[in-house]
Amino acid sequence: MTLPVDYFAVVLAGGRGTRFWPLSRRALPKQCLSLDGGPTLLQRTVARTGLPPERVLIVTGPDMVAAVREQLPGIELLVEPSPRNTAAAIAWAAFEVERRGGAGSYVLPSDHVVQDEPAFRTALATAAAVAETGALVTLGVRPTRPETGFGWIEVGEGTGPDRPVRRFVEKPGRAVAEALLAGGQHLWNAGMFVWSSEALLAAVDTHLSGTAAMVAGLRSGSTIADVWALAEATSIDYGVLERAEGIRVVPVDFGWSDVGSWPALLEVLPAGEGGVSVAEAVIAIRAEGNVVHAPGKVVALLGVDGLVVVDTPDALLVAPVADAQDVRLLLEEAERRGLVRLS
Amino acid sequence: MTLPVDYFAVVLAGGRGTRFWPLSRRALPKQCLSLDGGPTLLQRTVARTGLPPERVLIVTGPDMVAAVREQLPGIELLVEPSPRNTAAAIAWAAFEVERRGGAGSYVLPSDHVVQDEPAFRTALATAAAVAETGALVTLGVRPTRPETGFGWIEVGEGTGPDRPVRRFVEKPGRAVAEALLAGGQHLWNAGMFVWSSEALLAAVDTHLSGTAAMVAGLRSGSTIADVWALAEATSIDYGVLERAEGIRVVPVDFGWSDVGSWPALLEVLPAGEGGVSVAEAVIAIRAEGNVVHAPGKVVALLGVDGLVVVDTPDALLVAPVADAQDVRLLLEEAERRGLVRLS
Repeated sequence: MTLPVDYFAVVLAGGRGTRFWPLSRRALPKQCLSLDGGPTLLQRTVARTGLPPERVLIVTGPDMVAAVREQLPGIELLVEPSPRNTAAAIAWAAFEVERRGGAGSYVLPSDHVVQDEPAFRTALATAAAVAETGALVTLGVRPTRPETGFGWIEVGEGTGPDRPVRRFVEKPGRAVAEALLAGGQHLWNAGMFVWSSEALLAAVDTHLSGTAAMVAGLRSGSTIADVWALAEATSIDYGVLERAEGIRVVPVDFGWSDVGSWPALLEVLPAGEGGVSVAEAVIAIRAEGNVVHAPGKVVALLGVDGLVVVDTPDALLVAPVADAQDVRLLLEEAERRGLVRLS
Repeated sequence: MTLPVDYFAVVLAGGRGTRFWPLSRRALPKQCLSLDGGPTLLQRTVARTGLPPERVLIVTGPDMVAAVREQLPGIELLVEPSPRNTAAAIAWAAFEVERRGGAGSYVLPSDHVVQDEPAFRTALATAAAVAETGALVTLGVRPTRPETGFGWIEVGEGTGPDRPVRRFVEKPGRAVAEALLAGGQHLWNAGMFVWSSEALLAAVDTHLSGTAAMVAGLRSGSTIADVWALAEATSIDYGVLERAEGIRVVPVDFGWSDVGSWPALLEVLPAGEGGVSVAEAVIAIRAEGNVVHAPGKVVALLGVDGLVVVDTPDALLVAPVADAQDVRLLLEEAERRGLVRLS
């Protein structure tokens, strides 16, 4: 299925994150990494849209320009003067799409995994058709576990491919998440949105006066550097979606993962010897459930279960899967010791 | 203390071993490794004698000639045509010492650690003085644990720096080892011997007729390749010492370790963050008792205890200390898979 050519992919690649340290660094964040030895998450994000390069805009920060350009030569970048959360970036991108004669945006995080790419493109096309009615559309991922790390979307009744959003539920506690999963009326908010520039910018006018002023400034010829500071530093979810009426959601089920930390590779990579791995080879004896990232090396695991082992040219991490969310503590400690090249 | 200049160091560097895999390889055995980031065990073995290079002979095998020459340029090598255990090597060396005008040998393994080098040289000088009486002398290490991996030496009464050997005890079981330790009449046989060539070759004449024929052949101008096969393939302990009379032992206590496997580094290296390590730095959070060998890397340990982590340019090992004696299984598996460069 091909997508309407007057919609642009707007890929949000400003994230920094430390959860894939020591592979990720401040100047090489998760989206710029290959977690499976192939293309990077960012390269895959662009490729899976199937859109031609001139229909893709990447929003990123100054630190990451070099890495992004190297990975995606020929794709246009919108470089945020400073981090200002997603509402400002998305509104700017909507304006830039409009300026290029486009009708709307597929707003896509740059650091997620999608297993079923045809289903993904079908979902975007479905969402674009709904967006053409003037609605703001979000994709809602069918939940598979009581995840407390995501926002959830309460879905209303409907018969078509899309449903009304009843409300957004912020990251719930465990008990609430279990109830949401069991109830069957909620989807995960995966941060993927589809809308026309007209509808999005109208909602910005209504709910974010500073961001609207930024867009007005751009329209009258100001540079982004001149007007960026006018925009509210808020998320699109909090600043617009939770306040707007008539939001629609397209339920999707295309093998999505936000690969939030090293252990998530256990879901995303095919199971192999000793666990999951990116390495020349793994030799495992009495070893299971490990997450290994050591491209080019033979990794020998003997009598170890559930470890994360990450090898890079200058740093090596070993931690149990259960502790892997704390790798930022190691990065912070490295920085305290002046090991700046590890930052 | 300087040693008598008419004794030569005879360093036995033919061992192969797999217990330090993946750092050790068949062509780069343990004695050729640095386990602490400094000189190799072999280089340290030669250096700690304090002898000039022309008073050192290294006995090794054809595979290791390149590595040994690189580490110790200017030291003469005796290259065994094939592996034939220690008796043949030591008898050949005794002959070569005699041929060079030397009086005797300090026979030294090449892959052990000695912490107190002055005490070591004092012990060699003491043993050489005893050897000058015509005795075969062994150094006996004061035991610190009921070790089942070594032979033990039962010591008789005496008042001087040396004692008679009552008998050699082959590697004991645990209960016997505990009794030997408690009894206080036994020392560890560490494979370090001091004797005149005359006394050693006389004992060879008595107990190993084939090896004696090999020496006779050398004396009459044969090359080692011509006569090597005449020698019994046996150890000096079994072939000579356990059969000879009048063996003397010098009890020693100079911080000796045979560093038999990765966990032994816990005894040999100074305790540091997260355990013991050779690395650019270790950052440890909730991690203790680990053995890390990753020269040049920053190693981040989070929530792991008692692991062996060994990084090399092409292979990475992770195993609990308790399983580290099984690393040869990993090597064997690597070879089964045709990963020959790891052998």
